[in-house]
Amino acid sequence: VPGVITLTTDFGQRDPWVGTMKGVILRVVRDVQLVDLTHEIAPHDITEAALALEAAAPFFPDRTVHLAVVDPGVGSQRRALALSARGHFFVGPDNGLFTPFLEGGAWRAIEISTASFGGGEPSRTFHGRDIFAPVAARLAAGVPVEGLGPDVPDPVRLRWPVATSISEGLVGEIVHVDRFGNLITSIRAGDVPCAAAGGTHAPSTCVIDVVGLSLRLVGTYADIAPGEAAALVGSAGRLEISMRGTSAAAALGVGRGDRVIVRSAQAGP
Amino acid sequence: VPGVITLTTDFGQRDPWVGTMKGVILRVVRDVQLVDLTHEIAPHDITEAALALEAAAPFFPDRTVHLAVVDPGVGSQRRALALSARGHFFVGPDNGLFTPFLEGGAWRAIEISTASFGGGEPSRTFHGRDIFAPVAARLAAGVPVEGLGPDVPDPVRLRWPVATSISEGLVGEIVHVDRFGNLITSIRAGDVPCAAAGGTHAPSTCVIDVVGLSLRLVGTYADIAPGEAAALVGSAGRLEISMRGTSAAAALGVGRGDRVIVRSAQAGP
Amino acid sequence: VPGVITLTTDFGQRDPWVGTMKGVILRVVRDVQLVDLTHEIAPHDITEAALALEAAAPFFPDRTVHLAVVDPGVGSQRRALALSARGHFFVGPDNGLFTPFLEGGAWRAIEISTASFGGGEPSRTFHGRDIFAPVAARLAAGVPVEGLGPDVPDPVRLRWPVATSISEGLVGEIVHVDRFGNLITSIRAGDVPCAAAGGTHAPSTCVIDVVGLSLRLVGTYADIAPGEAAALVGSAGRLEISMRGTSAAAALGVGRGDRVIVRSAQAGP
Repeated sequence: VPGVITLTTDFGQRDPWVGTMKGVILRVVRDVQLVDLTHEIAPHDITEAALALEAAAPFFPDRTVHLAVVDPGVGSQRRALALSARGHFFVGPDNGLFTPFLEGGAWRAIEISTASFGGGEPSRTFHGRDIFAPVAARLAAGVPVEGLGPDVPDPVRLRWPVATSISEGLVGEIVHVDRFGNLITSIRAGDVPCAAAGGTHAPSTCVIDVVGLSLRLVGTYADIAPGEAAALVGSAGRLEISMRGTSAAAALGVGRGDRVIVRSAQAGP
Repeated sequence: VPGVITLTTDFGQRDPWVGTMKGVILRVVRDVQLVDLTHEIAPHDITEAALALEAAAPFFPDRTVHLAVVDPGVGSQRRALALSARGHFFVGPDNGLFTPFLEGGAWRAIEISTASFGGGEPSRTFHGRDIFAPVAARLAAGVPVEGLGPDVPDPVRLRWPVATSISEGLVGEIVHVDRFGNLITSIRAGDVPCAAAGGTHAPSTCVIDVVGLSLRLVGTYADIAPGEAAALVGSAGRLEISMRGTSAAAALGVGRGDRVIVRSAQAGP
Repeated sequence: VPGVITLTTDFGQRDPWVGTMKGVILRVVRDVQLVDLTHEIAPHDITEAALALEAAAPFFPDRTVHLAVVDPGVGSQRRALALSARGHFFVGPDNGLFTPFLEGGAWRAIEISTASFGGGEPSRTFHGRDIFAPVAARLAAGVPVEGLGPDVPDPVRLRWPVATSISEGLVGEIVHVDRFGNLITSIRAGDVPCAAAGGTHAPSTCVIDVVGLSLRLVGTYADIAPGEAAALVGSAGRLEISMRGTSAAAALGVGRGDRVIVRSAQAGP
């Protein structure tokens, strides 16, 4: 069966750089499924790319290769990595892109270079084309990760936004604003100490505080009343704040880094 | 030969949700052609998605599966559908997305759920991933649509913009503004009671009235003079209003829902 | 092995026209790799598309078919082309799109039409769907280019931006502004008469003049100091002007067509 390679970059879709990487891959392996995750990561925003990978990778087949290039340090001394974790492979710069996959399970990181595949000197501006794509293609073709280079015991990790217990409940932060203006938080579904409400009946035992507002926890977008902002567990398995038919980010004036508290509905704000 | 699945959503291309659906599909069927129709449908704009499907689907091979997710009612009581029509399959929410394929021919609609493929409880926010993609993958792999669930005799239909005969000729409306600012109308090529003019000679016997202007009917974009607005039959087989090198929507101040009349050049406006 | 077809257009990604072309291709050949180069070429900007093809095509496998549709003259008398050059194929309107592949090597250009594949009358607005996609599919399936139609000895060529020697050094121009605001020039790596500097040591013997500024030539983005504008050889093998973490185009007020000079660091500006 064909291998699968996903691609995640901040290259945008106007310039032909993503296509160029695919051309390089297809010169190595022709029978492969190439899947774009996103190329609209904000330029140089490593955290946004790591969140995208964390949300999407678990839904891909075993042995999928995730090629990720958000690489402000290209051409500098930063290392290049191939990582084996959770039955998948990850290829990209060693700058924290793969932080979510370095927790909770075994992993093995290898330092790669053009020597991993007998290539010549790479350019100093486009390692996606010159190092990462050729290595991803070889992994998809079944080349073992171990032989690609020396082990890296200490891959770079990002400060990773989480939820923290406080006396009132849980505190987290907004980590991402999506296309609809939904505010995605650092609080994961499993952390929330109460069930969501379905519709307007059976109110949840939790409320969510953000910028002085106290919001209901509901089950899905359709449970939100017109004009209301509410919280729910979204598609990435994270608590998010949403409004119906409008951008919660714009309407509430909330953005990345703003604090969010989950607390019992009985306790005051 | 590999099956073909098209994808049409309002998810945008910044978040990894389209990629996530593709991962789910590839876990079921690996030898498949995945084709994006568009992910830039305006959020929750079911009519725009139905028009995109109507324009593109006829050019795909028999047995293509069209996966469409514009789903403001996700997690509510709205049904989920697999539809067989015109030798193709359509999978998505039962909210009118497939209206163009419920006219003019036999069809069969089936209510689907995670029970269609032995899956567990879906999320309440992402049925594209949890119901529609797994069903689309199975249809592409050759699973018969009939066994997926109970028949739906009354799928939801949109009010579908058409052209209506009036004493002067035909009246229709602008249904879409494309990337170039061309104004796409509800009037189909076959409805127009006159041939287009080629170039500046052999004027058409029809004129097109919109916001107080009377426009020529020409054969192609290159027939339009600089600064002129004119009408022609566009790529979707619909009458459209265009200007050369500029946006007709912006220049004329015309948009979706505005009225368009096709009449004989002899009659006054 | 599956053939490879790349797609380059100015269609954007909101309307389903790219997907429609892919549907047409898949009706002819199912076992094929379809790769988007870009669909965000500025409307009717033939030069931008030619630059994208020039940058990406060399990284694709032999016999790749490059389907390119930036076609302001669709429906007029402009010819339609299939071009064989550098071991690849190119299909699109005869308007200069393939200029970079008509230099430095043998090529053969063929005039194509629906007669090339026994098709009927094309629409007058969408030859991408009606002529170019069907021909590209046949080339990917192994149909020889020679049999598709008569030879074209004089395909249209664009005025192609280059670098010219002057007494101080080399003069060229800005040909493109990329997503990051980098200013891509007409000066190619091989034209530059000096090595780039690595980091802040070992200054290059060249400086680059643009809008009254004299910039350093460095090795990669990470060599640029915060707030500095500098020049480097970018991913397309062209000299470009970049700032770190900001748009050089916006900060310097420079754009397409502006003049750039490369000169010895010893000479005055």
